[in-house]
Amino acid sequence: MSVIKIAVLGFGIVGSGTVELFYRNRESICKKAGKELDIKYILEIRDMSDTEYTDKQTTDINDILDDDEVTIVAELIGGIKPAYSFVKSCLERGKSVVTSNKELVAEKGAELIKTAKQNNCCFYFEASAGGAIPLIRPLHQCLAGNEITSVAGILNGTTNFILTKMINDRMDFNSALKLAQELGYSEKDPVADIEGHDACRKICIIASLVFGRHVYPEYVHCEGIAKITAEDAAYAENWGGAIKLIGSVKKTSSGKILPLVRPAFVCGGNQLSNINDVFNGIMVYGDAVDEVMFYGRGAGKMPTASAVMSDIIDAAKSNGIPPVSLTWEDTADSSHIADYKDDITSFYVRTSKVSKQQIINTFGDVEFLSRNDMPADENAFITKPITERKFDVKLERFSRKILSSIRVFEQIEI
Amino acid sequence: MSVIKIAVLGFGIVGSGTVELFYRNRESICKKAGKELDIKYILEIRDMSDTEYTDKQTTDINDILDDDEVTIVAELIGGIKPAYSFVKSCLERGKSVVTSNKELVAEKGAELIKTAKQNNCCFYFEASAGGAIPLIRPLHQCLAGNEITSVAGILNGTTNFILTKMINDRMDFNSALKLAQELGYSEKDPVADIEGHDACRKICIIASLVFGRHVYPEYVHCEGIAKITAEDAAYAENWGGAIKLIGSVKKTSSGKILPLVRPAFVCGGNQLSNINDVFNGIMVYGDAVDEVMFYGRGAGKMPTASAVMSDIIDAAKSNGIPPVSLTWEDTADSSHIADYKDDITSFYVRTSKVSKQQIINTFGDVEFLSRNDMPADENAFITKPITERKFDVKLERFSRKILSSIRVFEQIEI
Repeated sequence: MSVIKIAVLGFGIVGSGTVELFYRNRESICKKAGKELDIKYILEIRDMSDTEYTDKQTTDINDILDDDEVTIVAELIGGIKPAYSFVKSCLERGKSVVTSNKELVAEKGAELIKTAKQNNCCFYFEASAGGAIPLIRPLHQCLAGNEITSVAGILNGTTNFILTKMINDRMDFNSALKLAQELGYSEKDPVADIEGHDACRKICIIASLVFGRHVYPEYVHCEGIAKITAEDAAYAENWGGAIKLIGSVKKTSSGKILPLVRPAFVCGGNQLSNINDVFNGIMVYGDAVDEVMFYGRGAGKMPTASAVMSDIIDAAKSNGIPPVSLTWEDTADSSHIADYKDDITSFYVRTSKVSKQQIINTFGDVEFLSRNDMPADENAFITKPITERKFDVKLERFSRKILSSIRVFEQIEI
Repeated sequence: MSVIKIAVLGFGIVGSGTVELFYRNRESICKKAGKELDIKYILEIRDMSDTEYTDKQTTDINDILDDDEVTIVAELIGGIKPAYSFVKSCLERGKSVVTSNKELVAEKGAELIKTAKQNNCCFYFEASAGGAIPLIRPLHQCLAGNEITSVAGILNGTTNFILTKMINDRMDFNSALKLAQELGYSEKDPVADIEGHDACRKICIIASLVFGRHVYPEYVHCEGIAKITAEDAAYAENWGGAIKLIGSVKKTSSGKILPLVRPAFVCGGNQLSNINDVFNGIMVYGDAVDEVMFYGRGAGKMPTASAVMSDIIDAAKSNGIPPVSLTWEDTADSSHIADYKDDITSFYVRTSKVSKQQIINTFGDVEFLSRNDMPADENAFITKPITERKFDVKLERFSRKILSSIRVFEQIEI
C-alpha cells in the first residue's frame, strides 16, 4: 500500500500540535483512515534545527507544489497572506487542503471550495469555526436530514473567559482582559477577540455552510464586549442568566438570513448560559432535531490539532472526491442578508436618573431588574420584544441618561 | 441518474417520522447525498390504508430482499426479533442497513458490522446511542485524531426527566415517574429506563466503538434510579450539584476498560449537571481534544428520524464501501472488562443514627452535607476517593443504619 504524503504549512502553535499529534497517535490515525499516512514536508521560515522534525523542513512552497507524492496539505499559517495563495496553488495542483484558518475561509471559502471541485480534490476546514468542537461535519453530515433554521453560539474563548470572570468573580472588564492576557488566552492585540471579529469570521463560515451562500464578514453587524460593565454583569446574574458574546445566524420570515455578533443577556434556562471560561458552545436548531449543542474548546494547540487531524483523515479517505455537502455558492452582494434593525428582540437597558414611570411611559410593560448596591437613581429593565429600529427611537428620548443597552438572546422557536 | 431505492422496516413512531422527514426535506436531502433517493417499500403489518404511503406497504420482507433495486434498508422496528434476522438477511444480500435499534446493536453489533463488510455494504446506527444527538459519527470521524480515554453521559431521557423533577420540583420518585408516563416520555413498562438497561445498551455501543471490542450488556454493572429519594436529591442540590443517571466507559490503568451505569452525584461545575428534563448529554474525553460534549434530544419521533436520515444519506454516498472507522471486533468473553469494585471513586452516604464521630472513625476525612428539615439523627456525607470494594467493607459496619449510598461522578482527568 502506498503511503499518502502530507505537507504541513506553518510550524507555529497549531502546526507543531498537528505534527505532534500525528506521530503520537499515528497507528490509530492510519487505522481510522484505512491508509498509511506520513508527513513529508513542514513549510516554516523559522529555524527548526532544534526540533526532531528538522529533516522535513522546507522554506519553499514550490518543493511541496512540485512534489506529486504530496496529496494532502494542512495550511496552519493563519491570515490571508501568504496562506491564500499557497492554498489556492495547492488546490490547483489537485492537492487536498485542510485548514484551521477562519480568516481564510470567511474571506475566500466559496472560491476555494470551487477551486477544489474543479481540480478533483477536497477543501476541509473543521477547525476554522468551532476549534476542537466537531461542528462543520455535524452540520453538513449528521444533521443533513434537517432544514436548519438557526445556529447560535459562543464562538470566542477569550471573550467568554472575560465575561465569566466579570460575572463569577465580579471583575471589571479591564482586569478580566488583563488576566486573560496573562494566562495566554488572548493575543497581545486583543481587538479581534474583544470587538467580535473572531466570532464574526466563525459565524460567516457557519452561515455560509448552513444557508448555502457565502456570507462575507462585512455583511455582518458585529458588536464587541468592551462596553460591558461589571454592573451589567451583576444585573444579568441577578436576573438568573449571564452575558455572553453570541454569534448567530437565522432564517427570517422574509426568506433572508440574519447573521449577527453581539453581547447578549442569555437566560439561565438556555444551555449557552452555562458555557463558561474559555469553552465554546454552539446550539443548532433544526426542523427535525429540535436543538442540539456542541461544547468544547474553541482554541488551543492540541484541541485545534484534533480537528485538523480529523480533516486530514477524511481527506485521505476521500480519494480526491470532494464532499458533496461541504459546499456553498459565492455571492456578489449582500441581498440575501436581512437588516438587523428589523430583528425583533428584547433589550436590557440601564439608566441613570430616569424614573420607573418615565420608563413605563416610553417602553410600556417592562421587567425591572435589581442588583446589590444599586444606586437610588439607577433603573435597569428588560423590554418586551421590539424591533431595534423602534427601540432606538424610544431610547433616544433618554439620550445621555442611558448607561447601557444590551440585546436579550431569544431562545429560537422552531 | 438512477434513483436509489430505500425500504423502511416498521411504520411506528420512528418509522413514520423517518418517512415524513424524507418527503418533507427530500430536495435538500438528495442534494446533500449528491444522488436521487426515494422510498420504495414500507414493511408494516398494521393496516396503512389510512396513510398517504399505503401504495408502498408490504407485509413480506421477501419483497424487499428480492428486489435488487433496493440498496438501502432502514430498520426501525426495534427489538431483536424479527429485526435481527431481517437486518442480517438484508446485509447478506448486499443492501446497506441503517438502524435506530440500540438493543440490536448492543447485542449483535460486531456480527452485523462483519456481515456488512463481507457483503460490501454498510451498517450504520447513528440513532442507536444518542438519539438525535450526533455522536457515533463524531466519535469515529471528528475525533479520529484522538485517543479517547473515556466517555460519560446522560443517555436516557426518561430517567433524566424524573431526576430533574425530583431536584427542581421536589417530587418523589413515584410521582415523577407517573408524570413522565402521563407526558408520554416513559413506556407503560418503564423497567428498561428506570433500571438503566436502556442507558446500558447505549454505553455498550459507545464502548465497543471507542475501544474496539464488543461490550455486551451482561458485561456491564448497571444500577437504576428506583432507590433514589427526594432526600438524596435535596442533599445533592445543597451540595451544588445534581443526581444524574450516568452511563460511562473509561480506560483503566490496567489497560482494561470499565463500562458502568449508575446514578451519581454530579458536581455543579460539570456540564452534565446542567442537562435537564428529557435532554441527553454525552461528554467525551480525548488526549488532544480535552473534553467535548454533545447535547440534545435522545429520543422522540422527529429527532430520532433526523439521525436515521443522516445514516441514509451516508449510505447513499458510500457506494457500498463500508466505513473503515465505524467498526469493532467481536469478543468471546469479558476479559477486557475491569471489575467495577476496583474503581476508585467518592461516595455519598446518608445514615440514620450514626454519629459524625463514628463516621469519621470509619471513613476518615469526609465532607458533611446538609439539607432543609434534616432530622437530628440523620447524617449525610461524601467520602474521599476509595475503591468500591473497600467502601463496601466500611459500610457494612453500619449495616441497617445506611439509608442511601450513591457514587460521586469524578470529572475525568486526561
